[in-house]
Amino acid sequence: MSIDPRETHRQPASQGSRIDPYVGSYAARAQGMVASEVRALFAVASRPEVVSLAGGMPNVSALPLEDIGQIVQDVVAQQGATALQYGSAQGDPGLREQICEVMSLEGIDASADDVIVTVGSQQALDLVTRVFVDPGDVVLCEAPTYVTAINTFAAFQADIVHVAMDEHGVVPEALDEHLTRLAAAGRKVKFFYTIPNFQNPAGVTLTAERRRRVLEICRSHGLLVLEDNPYGLLRYEGEACRALRADAPDNVIYLGSFSKTLSPGFRIGWALAPAAVRAKLVLAAESAMLSHSTFNQMVVGRYLSTHPWREQIKDFNEMYRERRDAMLGALEALMPAGTTWTRPQGGFFVWVTLPEGLDAKAMLPRAVSERVAYVPGTGFYASDEGRRNMRLSFCYPTPDQIREGVRRLAGVLKSETALRDTFGTTSTAPSGGNDTPSPDLP
Amino acid sequence: MSIDPRETHRQPASQGSRIDPYVGSYAARAQGMVASEVRALFAVASRPEVVSLAGGMPNVSALPLEDIGQIVQDVVAQQGATALQYGSAQGDPGLREQICEVMSLEGIDASADDVIVTVGSQQALDLVTRVFVDPGDVVLCEAPTYVTAINTFAAFQADIVHVAMDEHGVVPEALDEHLTRLAAAGRKVKFFYTIPNFQNPAGVTLTAERRRRVLEICRSHGLLVLEDNPYGLLRYEGEACRALRADAPDNVIYLGSFSKTLSPGFRIGWALAPAAVRAKLVLAAESAMLSHSTFNQMVVGRYLSTHPWREQIKDFNEMYRERRDAMLGALEALMPAGTTWTRPQGGFFVWVTLPEGLDAKAMLPRAVSERVAYVPGTGFYASDEGRRNMRLSFCYPTPDQIREGVRRLAGVLKSETALRDTFGTTSTAPSGGNDTPSPDLP
Repeated sequence: MSIDPRETHRQPASQGSRIDPYVGSYAARAQGMVASEVRALFAVASRPEVVSLAGGMPNVSALPLEDIGQIVQDVVAQQGATALQYGSAQGDPGLREQICEVMSLEGIDASADDVIVTVGSQQALDLVTRVFVDPGDVVLCEAPTYVTAINTFAAFQADIVHVAMDEHGVVPEALDEHLTRLAAAGRKVKFFYTIPNFQNPAGVTLTAERRRRVLEICRSHGLLVLEDNPYGLLRYEGEACRALRADAPDNVIYLGSFSKTLSPGFRIGWALAPAAVRAKLVLAAESAMLSHSTFNQMVVGRYLSTHPWREQIKDFNEMYRERRDAMLGALEALMPAGTTWTRPQGGFFVWVTLPEGLDAKAMLPRAVSERVAYVPGTGFYASDEGRRNMRLSFCYPTPDQIREGVRRLAGVLKSETALRDTFGTTSTAPSGGNDTPSPDLP
Repeated sequence: MSIDPRETHRQPASQGSRIDPYVGSYAARAQGMVASEVRALFAVASRPEVVSLAGGMPNVSALPLEDIGQIVQDVVAQQGATALQYGSAQGDPGLREQICEVMSLEGIDASADDVIVTVGSQQALDLVTRVFVDPGDVVLCEAPTYVTAINTFAAFQADIVHVAMDEHGVVPEALDEHLTRLAAAGRKVKFFYTIPNFQNPAGVTLTAERRRRVLEICRSHGLLVLEDNPYGLLRYEGEACRALRADAPDNVIYLGSFSKTLSPGFRIGWALAPAAVRAKLVLAAESAMLSHSTFNQMVVGRYLSTHPWREQIKDFNEMYRERRDAMLGALEALMPAGTTWTRPQGGFFVWVTLPEGLDAKAMLPRAVSERVAYVPGTGFYASDEGRRNMRLSFCYPTPDQIREGVRRLAGVLKSETALRDTFGTTSTAPSGGNDTPSPDLP
């Protein structure tokens, strides 16, 4: 990866809407809420003739629909009076116990009292940011990092500082240097946001040795770690790592999700936090949505208690491993010289670095007209980095579609390389807005 | 009602947690996120021997559970691949069309393009506040108003200004005076938040004549109206009013919900907003939760298309009318002299004003030990008003329980009055925090 630890802030793009009578009324935090022009392309990319390597949608067609149909009906029939009523803002106590069981697979020993159920782990991210971040506070993130986390931090006017990452995850020395420098500058750093397993978008995993170092560094600087782990159980090779939270219960807020191990359609994620923080998150959740769907929580709870969910995840992992292998094989066979990529042991994503002089964002319209889509790397930085990068997803298309998509992409890269060799460089695209597909696009 | 239009800000109470290592790290907006001590009382009040007139839980036991069980199973069986996948942040297009049909019952002519589906209308409130409110901006509210709206505005550090209300709803002249005064003071007022039908907590409805005046005043001051209408279709007598939105599509953001007309368990609410505002709300929703549950949206959509939902609401209204009548009858028969109350034509709540010298919050522990609970009026003000008030709910208990609850309450009031006559006044309780039950308590 070519990763530059420079710190820059997300720039708001132009308002777009010229006749909005409320343009002078929006909050400062809303100025950066603008849709990217790239998004229109992704809508085109959802057409059936396009192979989309862009989205992060899990392959829910592998779900046991008959069992789930029975479960949802049973919840209404047997627990309807509770399931169809308001719940608490913290979430269903039974489900919170089961969540602790799920987390124990990654070495976490937690009490259900310290868990809050959220609308996907995205809402947990939002609540944590809302509780901790004042305008101008610093949030540290990996470089690159999850795009919607960037949007959430930016929505609360954080200064996002990227920390260098390589194939072993975030670089501990870079983290330490940033923290020392920011402390010297009197800056308030609120937390370090990390996706330690099969990172989105980079696909890399933080090594066990680095996990220890990261925890030491954060502890010595008195810094909270925000550990986002939606893909941890989707491992296709190698040995599982202990969660950061497993070894630092007082210094880590852990975020989990059933969106990838079951279904994103129920929107059940969670945060595990030190008790005082959890209390704040619950109050924030109440003002954000009163309570989450009791029904959905009971459905997930009943799924966990009646369905062999560990076996189900193994089946998912077989399926996703085959897709990952299809992608890595095709990249190896077809990519032009000078192109490099990561080799994820799990999760959904491969991060590609293009040959010098190519611009992944500028190239996207040409790729879409060649019937293949990806996400340009720029979307995963709060700065204007990532132009030579793209994120490729292997979660949704079939292995054959993946091979065909990579073949088309290789063709685009070859003609771009030819252009570069003729003209010195290819055009570059403007930055700003959210350069990723909306959540409902493959 | 004794309503004072003074403006005061919500005061944060003490942190409560003395050993929280993150106490210095929270955002300014989180300082006010504190749980009220009154909440512990409501947990006691949920015991079966207590008649709770406190909560706002609808009576979901009246729902057609068998039909709903079939609907949820059909959604999984017939639409599983879509229902269990991520959706768009704006919400399911089919449901948004159906929401327009529901709103047409109150005179609204809207396009599904301008609707966003939210996690209850509470999330819509949160998103609107997030998009419009900078710290120190003014939000105008009725006096009293919905407690969780106050919490949400306070969480975004708004200055909450209450506008006087009487039995015909908000007083237009008071609204005009506030706006004129605030403009002269150079204050930024972001919107006027109103619950025009069967207001929570006051139970009053804004008259047709005042609706026109409120719209005129807001239009002349260039102010947005935030119309929150969760109870509009739950009318037990009199004629339905047109929604404010029906007559001012460019100046009103309308919030609706299926929590009272179907079930709060699915958490489906919505906002209807002018197009430019709606676009901002969708981006804010994406950063808040990525997308809402597709499954739940399809369940509500299928309910609306396969179940006679208008007839179902008529059945609900029969049931709630009986409960309201039980409460008004018991109040009339049993309340001591000097006590007054509102007479709601719909919704869930009656607002009681106690005799001079009584304090509803200080009295609550005694009431709970007499096995009856209510919400003290203080919870519905951002200031320390409302001490002589209480909100009584008639939605959840049966008519017999309601009569028994009012009988116990009348007993408490009589002994309080005797105390007052002996000592001049009763003790007063400290204010701060959220003086209402959590959403899962009756």
